[in-house]
Amino acid sequence: MESASSPERVWTAALIVIGDEILSGRTQDRNVAQLATWLNVQGIRLAEVRVVADRTDAIGEAVNALRVRNDYLFTTGGIGPTHDDITVDAIAEALGVPVIEHEEARAILERYYVDRGGLTVARARMTRTPQGASLIPNRVSGAPGIRIGNIFIMAGVPHITAGMLDALTGTLEGGRPVVSRTIGCWVGESEVAELLRSAEKAHDGVAIGSYPFFREGRTGANFVIRSPDPVLADTCLRHLTAELEAAGHRVISDGI
Amino acid sequence: MESASSPERVWTAALIVIGDEILSGRTQDRNVAQLATWLNVQGIRLAEVRVVADRTDAIGEAVNALRVRNDYLFTTGGIGPTHDDITVDAIAEALGVPVIEHEEARAILERYYVDRGGLTVARARMTRTPQGASLIPNRVSGAPGIRIGNIFIMAGVPHITAGMLDALTGTLEGGRPVVSRTIGCWVGESEVAELLRSAEKAHDGVAIGSYPFFREGRTGANFVIRSPDPVLADTCLRHLTAELEAAGHRVISDGI
Repeated sequence: MESASSPERVWTAALIVIGDEILSGRTQDRNVAQLATWLNVQGIRLAEVRVVADRTDAIGEAVNALRVRNDYLFTTGGIGPTHDDITVDAIAEALGVPVIEHEEARAILERYYVDRGGLTVARARMTRTPQGASLIPNRVSGAPGIRIGNIFIMAGVPHITAGMLDALTGTLEGGRPVVSRTIGCWVGESEVAELLRSAEKAHDGVAIGSYPFFREGRTGANFVIRSPDPVLADTCLRHLTAELEAAGHRVISDGI
Repeated sequence: MESASSPERVWTAALIVIGDEILSGRTQDRNVAQLATWLNVQGIRLAEVRVVADRTDAIGEAVNALRVRNDYLFTTGGIGPTHDDITVDAIAEALGVPVIEHEEARAILERYYVDRGGLTVARARMTRTPQGASLIPNRVSGAPGIRIGNIFIMAGVPHITAGMLDALTGTLEGGRPVVSRTIGCWVGESEVAELLRSAEKAHDGVAIGSYPFFREGRTGANFVIRSPDPVLADTCLRHLTAELEAAGHRVISDGI
């Protein structure tokens, strides 16, 4: 098997969620889970996330820390037309490039607003990009996302972000997607902790996560086996299932 | 007014969400919003969040970066009995202190498990803390949270975290809570961008956020005024409401 002889290149991405509304608790973030799921299909692993305030220094610090140690960096939020939308300026400053008016963005927005009151001064803010950027199509609401180097600057509103991700599908180089297999037991995870540990140890290249819960008045846990190698994941799944059943625990396929 | 003459001390906190299940998209995080809301009542601002993998180096880097520049640091996740629960070890290593068995934690868990099969080896993992730690009561599921210095190590399961926060309520020094006032308009935010900018500028100590949406086939936005000074927030609210109405936009109290 290829994966056994040569270690695979793992492609990673980071996400910076930009917005006071997340840090104040007003808005429940949805972009972490949305991006994570999408990235996995592209064969890219979401390695780390930061949530930062609408502040130039906070955005810049996170951008420069994460862009160099990941293959890709995504940001969500702060690209609208209002005064609190400072993502473009902050990223340009972090990269040491000027902000320019992007001709293609202007053309897109002029078309988009032609029947919607025209491209006002506020709306024209959304034609600004760091110099050297290209655009990410926005099929939902006009103003495009922005790509500069390995940075992808996306909307904050999750369904607009979804449209931008859709436009990027299949365009980023990645490795094999991580597959996951889930099983569940009505058991306290502490009762099977040693068994989980040894199952993980016996299958190099597999990570097993244990996620306990309390539901319907009973204690249970789901066990998630993750690996870029589907054969290995399945082998580990069979092994762990057999071990759990040998220990007297009924195993529920696909989790509880 | 006190706030006008002397700048107020702002108390900040950071959160590290620890867990592969968040980064894989399997689990939707709830602890960011939960902690943010709770902190605000304590007069503490959630300044930044990082989501990191179940890896010692990733946890350690985040802990040492965030604990020094915030008054408080919270972590969620990774304190259960299984092999993937490495938060205690990673934080101890980051702080350069050994992991010890905490006597009080052992006593609590021995009591908790007396009718539940006893304190097994796996469960005894949850009696381990960095040296010098105290405990945070867990009314929900036995294993306590851990406080060491300004770091609060909490459960990952949101309702267990909620119980721990409840136990901490009123015990942390903070400043004035940030109050927020929300109004909404059925208007594209770009149409009122200049008006929002000048309203924020005219009220030093106030931040105005603009949160657009598309609902019921129409475009709208909520505007959130935030300040630790409730009088100032109300003044700004009246000013912004008057300006929006003068511009012909009906203002909906408490937002849409």
